[in-house]
Amino acid sequence: MAQQERAVRTRRAVLEAAAAVFAERGYAAATIAEILNRAGVTKGALYFHFDSKAALARGVLQEQISTEYHVPRELKLQEWVDAGMTLADRLPREPLLLAGVRLSADLRGRSVFGSAWPAWAEFTAARLTEAKARGEVLPHVVPEESAQVFLGAWTGVQLVSQALADWADLDERMAALFDHLLPAITVPSVLDRLDTAPDRGARVIAEVRGRSRTALAGARA
Amino acid sequence: MAQQERAVRTRRAVLEAAAAVFAERGYAAATIAEILNRAGVTKGALYFHFDSKAALARGVLQEQISTEYHVPRELKLQEWVDAGMTLADRLPREPLLLAGVRLSADLRGRSVFGSAWPAWAEFTAARLTEAKARGEVLPHVVPEESAQVFLGAWTGVQLVSQALADWADLDERMAALFDHLLPAITVPSVLDRLDTAPDRGARVIAEVRGRSRTALAGARA
Repeated sequence: MAQQERAVRTRRAVLEAAAAVFAERGYAAATIAEILNRAGVTKGALYFHFDSKAALARGVLQEQISTEYHVPRELKLQEWVDAGMTLADRLPREPLLLAGVRLSADLRGRSVFGSAWPAWAEFTAARLTEAKARGEVLPHVVPEESAQVFLGAWTGVQLVSQALADWADLDERMAALFDHLLPAITVPSVLDRLDTAPDRGARVIAEVRGRSRTALAGARA
Repeated sequence: MAQQERAVRTRRAVLEAAAAVFAERGYAAATIAEILNRAGVTKGALYFHFDSKAALARGVLQEQISTEYHVPRELKLQEWVDAGMTLADRLPREPLLLAGVRLSADLRGRSVFGSAWPAWAEFTAARLTEAKARGEVLPHVVPEESAQVFLGAWTGVQLVSQALADWADLDERMAALFDHLLPAITVPSVLDRLDTAPDRGARVIAEVRGRSRTALAGARA
């Protein structure tokens, strides 16, 4: 394994261990010792990548917005829905995402290590702005305002899903949230064409994985 | 002061002290000693009303839904909006309400003392069911489903408002939330008649206080 590749893997192992500990205990109760133990790396290796617990938290937060499962669609609003629905599908299974949600809502910690909220709000506002330029969004909608509503609503929906169902119903709650927000935002002729079914996220993820398998097979042939 | 009146006042003082301590420290870190100290009552007086810390938390949660500022309106949906907007106005100033929000979202504690979430969801579902019977709500709307969406959204909106603005913008965020949810629920001709301005809650509260002053003056005359 090349040295650079090893460094990337170590960094990832440390981040995932930190995420698991932050997600389980919260930031304040997490210790570097437990993260080291879980990651199975040396103290030197950890500190090479992250010089403090706050740096680990910032590292986790930077992983929140990924384009891994982004597929361009005819409707920009569908891309926004897809981002939310794939997140709802992945969140219960990915400690990095779970930890990011928990850290972002940590009222004491967020002044130390920040939050993914601004990045999430900007992401939504950018998608709504693109969709508006294409005539998918109602003229009176202010993308930044709608993005703030969605940020708050989504934060609470995942909290309620965690508390009541250990995230088992997150896809259904997220689909219901989109169904309740989209009519305020969307041009009627576009609204009918959006897919907000609870299994939308799982289908998009399967589509992306299918494509990369096909691409791999093609490269090998 | 009659003995019964004194008991009511003591109970209230204990509940408010407990609420303030729960709101500041969370349930786990709160102690009966600090609550006693803050309430200025004897241990015997506290235990006469509440036999444990969990009983205090349950007492706080039972205070969450009050009809104090309820005014009947021509539109049932306006009554629902008014309940949300008066809550948004009162929350930042009333430790009993703040503590209830915090306790309800306490993932560990809620199995011990419960949560106000079911009562909130039932309240919304009941208002939407009444509104639907009067033709204010779109036929496909399922009141219990919309109530769950609103519960999640409202929980998150107050958390985001607390984190970013110490609740100073809660009225604006709550108004924006109603503006984003109502089109999915409401018959178009009713939608235009609903008042969801950020100062709606403050105006309803002033109206109720004005009426009770008038009633008092009338009783004295």
